Amino acid sequence: MEMAETGIPVRVILDEKEMPEAWYNICADLPVPLPPPLHPATKEPCGPEDLAPLFPMALIEQEVSAERFIEIPEEVKAVYRLFRPTPLQRAYRLEKALDTPARIFYKNEGLSPAGSHKPNTAIAQAYFNKVEGVKRLTTETGAGQWGSALALGCKLFGLELDVFMVKVSYHQKPYRRTLMETWGANVYASPTEMTEAGRAVLKDDPESPGSLGIAISEAVEVAMKREDTKYSLGSVLNHVCLHQTVIGLEAKKQMEKIGEYPDVIIGCVGGGSNFSGILFPFMADKFAGKKLKAIAVEPVSCPTLTRGKYEYDFGDQAETTPLIKMYTLGHNFIPSPIHAGGLRYHGDAPILSLLVKEGYIEAVAYPQTEVFDAGVKFAQAEGFVVAPETAHAVKCVIDEAIKCRESGESKTILFNLSGHGLLDLAGYQEFLDGKLTD
Amino acid sequence: MEMAETGIPVRVILDEKEMPEAWYNICADLPVPLPPPLHPATKEPCGPEDLAPLFPMALIEQEVSAERFIEIPEEVKAVYRLFRPTPLQRAYRLEKALDTPARIFYKNEGLSPAGSHKPNTAIAQAYFNKVEGVKRLTTETGAGQWGSALALGCKLFGLELDVFMVKVSYHQKPYRRTLMETWGANVYASPTEMTEAGRAVLKDDPESPGSLGIAISEAVEVAMKREDTKYSLGSVLNHVCLHQTVIGLEAKKQMEKIGEYPDVIIGCVGGGSNFSGILFPFMADKFAGKKLKAIAVEPVSCPTLTRGKYEYDFGDQAETTPLIKMYTLGHNFIPSPIHAGGLRYHGDAPILSLLVKEGYIEAVAYPQTEVFDAGVKFAQAEGFVVAPETAHAVKCVIDEAIKCRESGESKTILFNLSGHGLLDLAGYQEFLDGKLTD
Repeated sequence: MEMAETGIPVRVILDEKEMPEAWYNICADLPVPLPPPLHPATKEPCGPEDLAPLFPMALIEQEVSAERFIEIPEEVKAVYRLFRPTPLQRAYRLEKALDTPARIFYKNEGLSPAGSHKPNTAIAQAYFNKVEGVKRLTTETGAGQWGSALALGCKLFGLELDVFMVKVSYHQKPYRRTLMETWGANVYASPTEMTEAGRAVLKDDPESPGSLGIAISEAVEVAMKREDTKYSLGSVLNHVCLHQTVIGLEAKKQMEKIGEYPDVIIGCVGGGSNFSGILFPFMADKFAGKKLKAIAVEPVSCPTLTRGKYEYDFGDQAETTPLIKMYTLGHNFIPSPIHAGGLRYHGDAPILSLLVKEGYIEAVAYPQTEVFDAGVKFAQAEGFVVAPETAHAVKCVIDEAIKCRESGESKTILFNLSGHGLLDLAGYQEFLDGKLTD
Repeated sequence: MEMAETGIPVRVILDEKEMPEAWYNICADLPVPLPPPLHPATKEPCGPEDLAPLFPMALIEQEVSAERFIEIPEEVKAVYRLFRPTPLQRAYRLEKALDTPARIFYKNEGLSPAGSHKPNTAIAQAYFNKVEGVKRLTTETGAGQWGSALALGCKLFGLELDVFMVKVSYHQKPYRRTLMETWGANVYASPTEMTEAGRAVLKDDPESPGSLGIAISEAVEVAMKREDTKYSLGSVLNHVCLHQTVIGLEAKKQMEKIGEYPDVIIGCVGGGSNFSGILFPFMADKFAGKKLKAIAVEPVSCPTLTRGKYEYDFGDQAETTPLIKMYTLGHNFIPSPIHAGGLRYHGDAPILSLLVKEGYIEAVAYPQTEVFDAGVKFAQAEGFVVAPETAHAVKCVIDEAIKCRESGESKTILFNLSGHGLLDLAGYQEFLDGKLTD
């Protein structure tokens, strides 16, 4: 190997003062109307009153807002400052390893205390609930990224938290549970005996490994039944994607500083929030005519955007959530237990789904052995070991960079390093030992 | 809990251009001479030729240099830029939780790809070896922090690496091994059958859990026997402490930016490199008369500085290293298997030992239950989950801050967050479950 090139800038850093003052609400600029969520019983569009048992009014307002920018409260920015602004990094070493003329940039969201982008919305949601007098939140978590982020958010704003963690992950990823408990959350292996939804599943299948859909049903049920308790979702919904735009807003500012603009933006997609977060502030330019390729990356074992149907479906197993128009594999779909637990959701964010349907976003799917191979390549070039979810994006970045090598095009590629893989090393070990299957 | 205070700066960020151009060599300013290392056979001071089989000449020169500043090569800075400069963070929330008038700052070295301060020297050592044509390094590792950092350094400069990992950690911390292997290193559970030193231990005790001292003997033996191979040590030595001063040099610049200067500097001490790194650039001012309290923190189960003797001792079990003058518990000392594996070394850096002996540095020791309690308090206030090693420093910071509350003094406390605890969560779980013992 050659000596590293010297004197090259690697990270573009923003000062705290340059952190965005407002989130970007893409709904203000959508070229076609977003189909509204429907009430599960009446099938009529949901009103704020339908959502009020689950969410505080501020988040319901954000969910349906048409304002282009929504101010980030000072209290939320104060917590963001623990880890934001995050660096924009240029992957020089990866470029060199791939011998590509492409310029590859990534936003490093893995540097947050919870290790992913999830705190961007967890902190905001905890704050807005706190302001409205909520004492306790409930939520579900798959791999544990979301649960740990919300545990952090709740601890910092003094809320109690009950996390329903998909049982297979609860046992496979004990360290995520530890993280949640370190931040003071109560963690339950879902399905539990605590809820009607959980008991119904266990009656049919006492050995059920659980699923995100089931865990959502449990968390929603508990929130509905308690006066002082609301529910929190870590992806899919408009207000979640909204909070994540802090990533793209920072990235845009950072790229402007060095005179760059992405030709391609890539992100992995489970529920869609991290990709929405980095993409949407740039997508506004695409609506205005700017050339931009956006690629959503998912696992072949949960191919929502590439093989799902665009239709109204429930967000959960027990059919308790509103119906939302999205790409879906069906709300009873249970994907194989791949390591990228955060990508194992049957549906996708309605906004992201609409943009895929309308042709603004492309989607690709990869099997997990290729994904881990890409993760190892990235770690060996750039140092950072990424989450299996993020490695999906990396695989696509590598493919795009190789296309550039073949075509000679010097494209600028931007992707979101949505999380580190330090609590997913069992998957890396399986891959290194040649034992990983697709 | 109250809402967070708003509008307050939390992180002091340096631009890449503000990264130090040179490491600070405290040997140029020591108030008393540093006793030289002695040859293990002749007991005469070691010359460069004695160290040449183990280390490249550039590092040997640094080991004995009297130059105040030693330039950081461009190639090393290029790699540092992946994660440096690191932020200086103010622990407002911890201050508030403790109701203390003290101002608490920490340097966050846990944001490096390997998750600790160790890459600061690993990268430098890999570079200087590469320049002199070395093809392969050997090293030992306890908890795996050092091994993973050197694996990263070696991968980025294209060197092979053999890591002898203390057997008890190899089995207790499989994820550290995965990390090393992801970065391409070969990892062996020490004692092994590969070396005379290892075979000798296994002959006496086939079930030996290993120790750092034994692993060092193995790594040194392999390096001595192979022409293209040298040995690398992650702490203790002068050149290692030198490379770590990048931490303190940055911290000093960052504190200057906000008009602060520490009254107290705190760090955990295993071999002493992270504490040396943050402390030494400030210690120069103390030599010149400035008031500054420096506190080294160690575990009661390996109380080198608080209960060891200041004398010449071997660095390893098999008595193959030079004799160095340091606080030591004896080179056959095997501490109990506490979670802070990085603090389980029988000796300490000679420079640090001298400064303790001469009264420039105080030392305290804590049992691990109090240490984990401090770690949880920090995580719940500041978000970041620190390594058990770092939690020793945090415990001392909390004690000092509480003293300030009692005395009403508004002291400025600086400590080094030497690493995150994401691969040490088993210890946190034991603590949370009430199962941790001292």
